[in-house]
Amino acid sequence: MSIITLTTDYGLKDHFVGSLKGKILSENPEVQIIDISHDIDPFNTAEASYIIGAAYMSFPKGTVHLIGVDIERNKENQHIAMQWNDHFFICADNGILSMLTQKIVPQKIVAINIHDRFPIEATDLDIFIQVASHLSKGGLLNVIGKEIPAIKEATELQALVADDGNSIKGNIIYIDHFGNVVTNISKKQFLEISRGRPYEIVMKPKNIKTILPNYSAIATSDKYPIKTYEGEKLAIFNEAGFLEIAIFRSNPSKVGSANSLLGLNYRDVITIKFS
Amino acid sequence: MSIITLTTDYGLKDHFVGSLKGKILSENPEVQIIDISHDIDPFNTAEASYIIGAAYMSFPKGTVHLIGVDIERNKENQHIAMQWNDHFFICADNGILSMLTQKIVPQKIVAINIHDRFPIEATDLDIFIQVASHLSKGGLLNVIGKEIPAIKEATELQALVADDGNSIKGNIIYIDHFGNVVTNISKKQFLEISRGRPYEIVMKPKNIKTILPNYSAIATSDKYPIKTYEGEKLAIFNEAGFLEIAIFRSNPSKVGSANSLLGLNYRDVITIKFS
Amino acid sequence: MSIITLTTDYGLKDHFVGSLKGKILSENPEVQIIDISHDIDPFNTAEASYIIGAAYMSFPKGTVHLIGVDIERNKENQHIAMQWNDHFFICADNGILSMLTQKIVPQKIVAINIHDRFPIEATDLDIFIQVASHLSKGGLLNVIGKEIPAIKEATELQALVADDGNSIKGNIIYIDHFGNVVTNISKKQFLEISRGRPYEIVMKPKNIKTILPNYSAIATSDKYPIKTYEGEKLAIFNEAGFLEIAIFRSNPSKVGSANSLLGLNYRDVITIKFS
Repeated sequence: MSIITLTTDYGLKDHFVGSLKGKILSENPEVQIIDISHDIDPFNTAEASYIIGAAYMSFPKGTVHLIGVDIERNKENQHIAMQWNDHFFICADNGILSMLTQKIVPQKIVAINIHDRFPIEATDLDIFIQVASHLSKGGLLNVIGKEIPAIKEATELQALVADDGNSIKGNIIYIDHFGNVVTNISKKQFLEISRGRPYEIVMKPKNIKTILPNYSAIATSDKYPIKTYEGEKLAIFNEAGFLEIAIFRSNPSKVGSANSLLGLNYRDVITIKFS
Repeated sequence: MSIITLTTDYGLKDHFVGSLKGKILSENPEVQIIDISHDIDPFNTAEASYIIGAAYMSFPKGTVHLIGVDIERNKENQHIAMQWNDHFFICADNGILSMLTQKIVPQKIVAINIHDRFPIEATDLDIFIQVASHLSKGGLLNVIGKEIPAIKEATELQALVADDGNSIKGNIIYIDHFGNVVTNISKKQFLEISRGRPYEIVMKPKNIKTILPNYSAIATSDKYPIKTYEGEKLAIFNEAGFLEIAIFRSNPSKVGSANSLLGLNYRDVITIKFS
Repeated sequence: MSIITLTTDYGLKDHFVGSLKGKILSENPEVQIIDISHDIDPFNTAEASYIIGAAYMSFPKGTVHLIGVDIERNKENQHIAMQWNDHFFICADNGILSMLTQKIVPQKIVAINIHDRFPIEATDLDIFIQVASHLSKGGLLNVIGKEIPAIKEATELQALVADDGNSIKGNIIYIDHFGNVVTNISKKQFLEISRGRPYEIVMKPKNIKTILPNYSAIATSDKYPIKTYEGEKLAIFNEAGFLEIAIFRSNPSKVGSANSLLGLNYRDVITIKFS
């Protein structure tokens, strides 16, 4: 049984996601549809990029990922389908996949060119559904598009290394359900630049001197119950491989979160300084 | 594999939707269950009516639609099951299906009469689950109910044509995830009344003179990037066939929405004047 | 086809739930995954305990329930898997299952001991996924853990009977989507203690003298339409078997709810006095 995942900014109140699933099942009744998120901030391709990049690796090879964020086909953005790391991605060419392609070269990219086969009232999403269904049945990319050499890069998603190689300057690109904030500084980049040097994470409220291997490593002493450490700030590289500033056992409505307690917001700068 | 869709006001926080699915799968392990929405405003049958009317057409014929909004069986409302346009609908007879039956005559309606077969602690929802499971296995309507000639009509859902035929007066019946507002004026009604005449959409903040074929038609000039048009108001007939007032690329928490920027709210009057 | 249910505090915005499902399907492509709730208040094991206790009974025997709330394995909490009433539960031993085990003795409990078989970067959730997949395929508990005699009890979840047997003192343990508040006083406990005596529910704003068989029993007279009773307070034993204080047809954003109208909050005391 093949899998189609959905990542959209459609929300769950309206009928849009249900309709999308109904249309997919009308095309391929055998496919398994899995929601990744429908709460992407509207038209926020950076957020969608982070989420799909963090999620895809949990799915089996061959999975088809439909990304319904800012999908309008217009003079600026064409529709594309990409085979990458043995997964398939369908989206508008608006930079949304550049967090993936920075890491590994795509196997094949096509500009979707089947729009003329559809009636005039077909939506952009109808095209994506057709392509997703085709790929989920093992169909070839060449049948639904024309090969292109590259996709658009969203450079604002990349953390920058200073010319002297002594710091990495990143931004907060995502705030999660627990209010923990995620930056665009990856573990890979950190290891490349740090070469074992001491470092400090410089941020607005107060610096952090250590990146922990996991959340519970904050409990440094066995003398106190774990509960003692609730509300302490910490830094880790999260499962998706990016630097995250967190509050231990944060609950946005009670203990507070990195977002609320530390005043860290979307797009804020976080720098790692090496010494 | 047959499909049962769910449209309820149960929300996703509680266990209600999970329990509902568990009970359905206990009755029919082979059925595919698809959520349409669980965020219908509590007891708001108008909203449920719009959502199910907009969603059903995306599903294959034979799909069973369970509507869990205001389902209490009491002296005013009986439980019904309806075959309509080759889909099946299960709900309380509270006017919730009248947006469908205004368009096409039902194939068959039954008043569900299997309540006596259940133990006293069975809930209204347990009856619906039994009926949905029966229909999803290809069971007949006659087995679970007694045929009735018609369902209750919710007249407040209909837009009104002025006696002189020179205007259509509708209301806002739904506000979507993007803050766009949907009226009860359908494209069908508009085309019947307009007969090609010039028109204007009259509404509280500022009138609109053109109904666009789609959102991106707002970008009238190729000279400017699409982004230039963000935040502009527009009118379209949406996928469900109803007049919608929207903000181009609206994001309720940032750009603002038709709901917030134009001050348009649930039940507000929108009139189309022909000249 | 076997079923795995999910109860977590991960929320639906992030990719966590999607990733969890992707990993489960990678291990067992044939399993059916059903969401119970992902909106458990973060780290709130009492809320999770109520929800899983209320939901499990709707699922077929043999269902595997994965509970992803406060699952960090540390010096205080080990990972457990429990067979109980022919269902399987996987969680941290943090008291979360004590609402179940108060009612029926577990068939078997094991402390999960397969952690050493995993690479160092495996998360607590990865262990749960492996165990859930194993059990969903009919695997034995002994293969993934070592039998233990009992689990931790969360005593704060239990309502207390006064020494003179003339009252039951409970607390509000859950506030649902409709703003109705649920206490930890069960119907079973009430029947045992009441022995037919008159009683009164004592609570902050105003006492209630009758526990109704269902919501609509509030409409005591046939002379008035059902709508007349909207907004009236009432008490019932809910489907999960616990005393619930509700507002008839409550809509938190319009009519108001027991939570807002009566000022009843999480942890507030509710007492039943017998006379």
